Order: sequence, then C-alpha cells, then structure tokens
Amino acid sequence: MEVPSGFLLGGVKEDDVGVGLLFSEKPCSVAGTFTRNTLRAAPVEYSEEVCARGRARGVIVNSGHANALTGEEGMQDVLRMADGASRLFGVPDDEVLVCSTGVIGERPPVDRILRLAEKVWESGMGADPEHVRAFNRAIMTTDTREKLSSYSGDGWSLLGVAKGAGMIHPNMSTMLAFLITDVRASPRGLAATLRESVEDTFNMISVDGDESTNDTVLLMANGASGLELGKDVPESEFEDAVLNVCEDLAREIARDGEGSTKLLEVEVRGARSKKEARRAARAVVSSNLVKAALFGEDPNWGRVGAAIGAARVDVDPDSLRISFESSKGRVVTYDGGPVEFDERRAARVLSDREVRIVVDLGAGSASARAWGCDLTYEYVKINAEYRT
Amino acid sequence: MEVPSGFLLGGVKEDDVGVGLLFSEKPCSVAGTFTRNTLRAAPVEYSEEVCARGRARGVIVNSGHANALTGEEGMQDVLRMADGASRLFGVPDDEVLVCSTGVIGERPPVDRILRLAEKVWESGMGADPEHVRAFNRAIMTTDTREKLSSYSGDGWSLLGVAKGAGMIHPNMSTMLAFLITDVRASPRGLAATLRESVEDTFNMISVDGDESTNDTVLLMANGASGLELGKDVPESEFEDAVLNVCEDLAREIARDGEGSTKLLEVEVRGARSKKEARRAARAVVSSNLVKAALFGEDPNWGRVGAAIGAARVDVDPDSLRISFESSKGRVVTYDGGPVEFDERRAARVLSDREVRIVVDLGAGSASARAWGCDLTYEYVKINAEYRT
Repeated sequence: MEVPSGFLLGGVKEDDVGVGLLFSEKPCSVAGTFTRNTLRAAPVEYSEEVCARGRARGVIVNSGHANALTGEEGMQDVLRMADGASRLFGVPDDEVLVCSTGVIGERPPVDRILRLAEKVWESGMGADPEHVRAFNRAIMTTDTREKLSSYSGDGWSLLGVAKGAGMIHPNMSTMLAFLITDVRASPRGLAATLRESVEDTFNMISVDGDESTNDTVLLMANGASGLELGKDVPESEFEDAVLNVCEDLAREIARDGEGSTKLLEVEVRGARSKKEARRAARAVVSSNLVKAALFGEDPNWGRVGAAIGAARVDVDPDSLRISFESSKGRVVTYDGGPVEFDERRAARVLSDREVRIVVDLGAGSASARAWGCDLTYEYVKINAEYRT
Repeated sequence: MEVPSGFLLGGVKEDDVGVGLLFSEKPCSVAGTFTRNTLRAAPVEYSEEVCARGRARGVIVNSGHANALTGEEGMQDVLRMADGASRLFGVPDDEVLVCSTGVIGERPPVDRILRLAEKVWESGMGADPEHVRAFNRAIMTTDTREKLSSYSGDGWSLLGVAKGAGMIHPNMSTMLAFLITDVRASPRGLAATLRESVEDTFNMISVDGDESTNDTVLLMANGASGLELGKDVPESEFEDAVLNVCEDLAREIARDGEGSTKLLEVEVRGARSKKEARRAARAVVSSNLVKAALFGEDPNWGRVGAAIGAARVDVDPDSLRISFESSKGRVVTYDGGPVEFDERRAARVLSDREVRIVVDLGAGSASARAWGCDLTYEYVKINAEYRT
C-alpha cells in the first residue's frame, strides 16, 4: 500500500467513541457523494456544503454517534467539531469536513471527541500504512475488518479507506469512504469521476433500507505529486483507478455484512438498459430468499427468477439464463427452461466463500453487478438483540 | 360464516398435491387482479383472459406446483386443467378459471390433478362452512392456518378465502384469494371495486420480492340473491364489504408469515400524498432491521426513521412523530426529537402478538397502512434449509 504524498492520517478509539483525522499539507480539491436518505444527518448537510465549494484541507470523523435526527443542536455539534479540528490543523474551519457514524438520535459527545482529536493530532498522525490502519480502526462500528484499497500510478497514487457492513446495523449504519490522491485535479473533474464510480460500486451494495442517514464518500486531491490530471495522468487511468478502488471497498463492505458467511456477487447481462440491469442485480442481491438460500448453499434459481420478475424487469423466460459460479466450478440451472444439474456439484460450487450468480436476461446488451452477502441466524440474532 | 347462495366448494389434498374446486350454479360476473411480476405463470396469463371477458362459472386450483417458468408446455397444462374442469362442471371451458401455487419451474401433474378434481366433484362439493374449509386446506402450501372472512348483508353475502404467507416461500410463494358473492353486478363494477380494495390491502402486505409469479385475486358475483348492486345493495356497502374482507385476509396472510411470531401493522399519517404514505408504510414493514427489532421486542425508532428516509419520503424531522402501540399500551419514542421513555413499559407494549407502529410525517394529510411480521431465526431456517 502506497500512501499518496502530503497526507497525514491518524486515529484512536476509547470505549465506544473513536476519532479519525485526515489532513493534507497542501490545499485539496474535493468532491463528495452523500446519502439520498431524506433524513440526513447534520454532518452530511455540513460536508455537502464544503464539497460544493470544492476546497478542503482535512477531515474529522467520529464513530459511536451518528449525529442523525438530532435537530438544530446536532448542527451546533458539527460546527464545534469543525472548529476544533480547524484549530488543530491551523486552517479555516470552512475547509474541514466532518463525518459521523454510530447511534441515531443521540448527540455526539463533542468535548470528548475534541480531546481525542487533540491526542491524535499531537502524537498519532503519520503517512505510513500503520497510521492509515489506525484511522480505519478508529472509525469502525460493527465492522469486523479493515477496508483498504490502493493504486500506484507512475509518480502518483490513490488510497481508499472505508467503513460499513453490507447488511448494515441501522443504528450503526453508516457507510463512509475516503479516497485521497496526490494528483492535481479540479473539483469538477473529481466530482464527475466519483459520481460515476459510486453509481457502479457503493450504490450496488445491498444494505437494509438502502441508504443510511450518514452515508458519505469523499475524494480529495492535493496535487503533491506535481502531476496534473488530464495532462500528466491520463483521465482514463485515473477513472479506472477510482472505479477499482471503490469496487474493492464496496466488496469488502458487502463481505463484512452482519452475521454473513459468504460474499455474493450478482452479475446481470443482456438487459435492455443499464438502469434495468442495475435494478435486476440489486433485486437479486437484496432478496431475503436468495440470501437465505445462499446460506443454505442451495442453487435456488426459482428465487432468482422471481426476484427479477418482481423488480418489473423486462425478461423473456425463453431467453433467460441463470448460473451459479465460484472458484469451485459453475452450474447452469436455467437456460430458456429448467436445466437438470448434478446436485452434489452444485453444492460444491455454493460451498465457496464467494459465490457469483450470473443472470442473462437475453433482452439487450446492458449489464451491471451488485454485491451482498447471505442471510444467517447470526444476522437475526445481532439485530434482534441489539439495544442501544 | 354465511356462504353466498348458489356456490359450491370442495377440495382434497393428497401428499404434496391439492385440488380445490369452486363452482357457481348460475353464470357469474368476474373480475381479477394479477401479479405485476414480469415472469408470470401460465395460469395467470390464462385467467386474466377469462376475466377480460368478464364471465365465469368455476375455478380449479392446484397446490404443489406453480406452473411458473414452464414455457409453452405450461400453457398446455393450463388448458388441460381448464378442459378437465369444464367437463366436470358441464360448462364451456372458456368460463373456467385456473390457479396454481407451489414449486416454480416444474410442470403440474395434470393427470393426477384431474383425478383428484373428479373425486372432489363427485363426492366433495358443498355450500357449507366445512366445504369452504376443505377448499381452503386443499390450496395451502406453507400456510399454517386457514384464511377466511365473510360479510352478511340484508339478503346477500360475501365470502373470501385465501392462501399465502406474509414472508412468502419463494417456491411456494403464491398469494391466492377468492371472493364470491350472490349479489348481481357487472364485471366492470366488480373490477373497479376489487382494484381499489386490493391496492389498500393485498398490495400492502410485505412479501419477499413483492409479488410472486402467480398472485391472483378473483371476485365472482352470481346474482343468486336476486339483489342488484347499486339498486338493491348500496355501492358503498358493497365496497366496504369487499375492502373489509380483503383486509381481513391480507392481515391473516401477514400474520402467517414464515417463522413469524408477531403481526406488525404500520400506519403512516400526515403524508403529502397517498402514494408517499403507501411507500413509507411499505418501507417500514419491509425493513429487515425493523422486523428483527420487533422479534427482539425493541422499540427501535431509529430504524423506523431510517427506513422512511431511505424510501425518499418527504419528512421534516421536527414534525416527525413515531409511536409503538399494542393492546398492552402505547409508547411515543420520537416527537420532533427523541423522547425519553420507560424501557420496561416499552418492552411490555412490544411483547404483544400484534404490534402497531404509528408514524406521523407531519407533512400533509394522507395516510396508509401496511402489514407484515417479525424476522426470526425460524424464517432463516425455513428458507435456508428448504430444498425442492
């Protein structure tokens, strides 16, 4: 993992509260995508405004309290966090981004958060992988593993850090991702690239209730490499790098779904339009019945078909094709009609930790992928027993 | 329970195959609503055509095999079932409706179904509650209880019989409902009344993947009472009767959700439009996280709020109000902001077998209700272990 030049990261967690800091030694262009949930948390409202101006120097993130559904006072808390971080960073407070993740409906303990931030700033910042991991661990809630991905170009690099669990805990629900690069780029260029990548990656993870009150993805570029996007760095290379890093992180979030034992990738091909392909892929990966069948290692293609049809996707059963694939093999279960298959072979294919369901609708040439996980006893247990 | 005049019902089940017959001594007007799943089973395609003509004399229903995703041969099977029943009934085969429920992707055993139909016709038809129950039991799949509701007017009556489970088994997924009345009515009048009632009842049950390949609701009126709708029977009384019978059946389907222990009713008030109210109510009742919290008897209002916001419903947190209610009391958890509440009292409210979540969006005056059930270990078990 290469950490882009000119960035410092750090983080600390004490009991249920964690604080992560991300700082750029040079001014950054910034772009963000934010939850479309109509009940947006105060930090989302605030950070969107910062992104609209396109300039930032740093980020303060807290875990433990989402600062969602907290009213006017919630916004005061955000402003205090931004102000506190700006003093540490020595930059204007309108160049500090704020993110929160944790319990909905409780105000964040700002004094405690700022004390922790001061501690991180004074002795916990660095530009090496260990500090990136400290930042990542600080912002975890129900996450069971770190989520990192990076790309090294010729003289520049891109790093992504994320938190979130595929079947998200609603009170600990946020999906947060931070992408940093030392390329020089305009906020407008970053925004277009980010929006497209998010559409095909983070927006294609199956999460309960789709989007939480706090979901945020940020892309910051500080130009410290001296290389300029579109001049020294080909746009296509940069776009691919952002897309690949986003896909890595999205897959890791899906894999880390609460109580999950398997990662599910659904690929839909042969759709009339990209929109229909996405809708079909999301429908399959979100289906409780498909997810429970995956847990049971059952290649239940009838559930796959029913989910696609229920999503009102244009499909002709005569040209529909459904297969289950993994590193242990491939089994076609429907091909214009039910296909007889070897049950033992199918069970072997589904016994893998990563399973792909490939659906060809036979109606056009558009395709899309979505990611999720299986539905397990453990999922019900976590979510039935959890109590703030 | 009063059985409308001039109808005979009966049914039998042998192993995994059941057959129900419904016959009217007089010609009926008929209306139907059918699944909007794009992969519709052959009997759905066929029965919709019968309903388009508006006249019917009887219905043959089989359980065990849905006759979905069975191609051209599936339609041949439907035609054979219609033909066999029409011979028994002594009526033209284009006045026989056909419904199927059961495993997707397998052709129904038509010879066996017709042998069972003959047996029912020869010795198992009747106009009393016991025969209605036999019909109902014959068409059950994963249902654990009968689903009946009736209304008695002045000289006329309405009876509804249904099958289906709220969190439906995808391979046994069908929701079927049959409403019969001895009022005289035009097919067009029936269709309008049925469509409206279904929209507020059967379409507001939370089912996995929304609608199965086979969902069908039929309303048949044979005029045997001699009373005419709109003349002898007020339209408003008839509409209310249909709506109430549909709601009873829909609630029973939700209550019978696979592995469920509680019935959940979600009422959304104060929405900008009926459409938004419906979307919000459906979002809450369909949320895995709300359902798991209900199983855990946890008044988790944060999950309710997140589900509504994720459904992109217009809501201002300052005027939002959320409460949990049951026969054991009521607890307000959010009212323009989080409300402190007595945890023990909340646990008592949620310990009931029927729980209502009431959400006031404070944005308008439209309202809607939806029904579902809790998400349990048993649900995962049934759906992970089920194998055709």
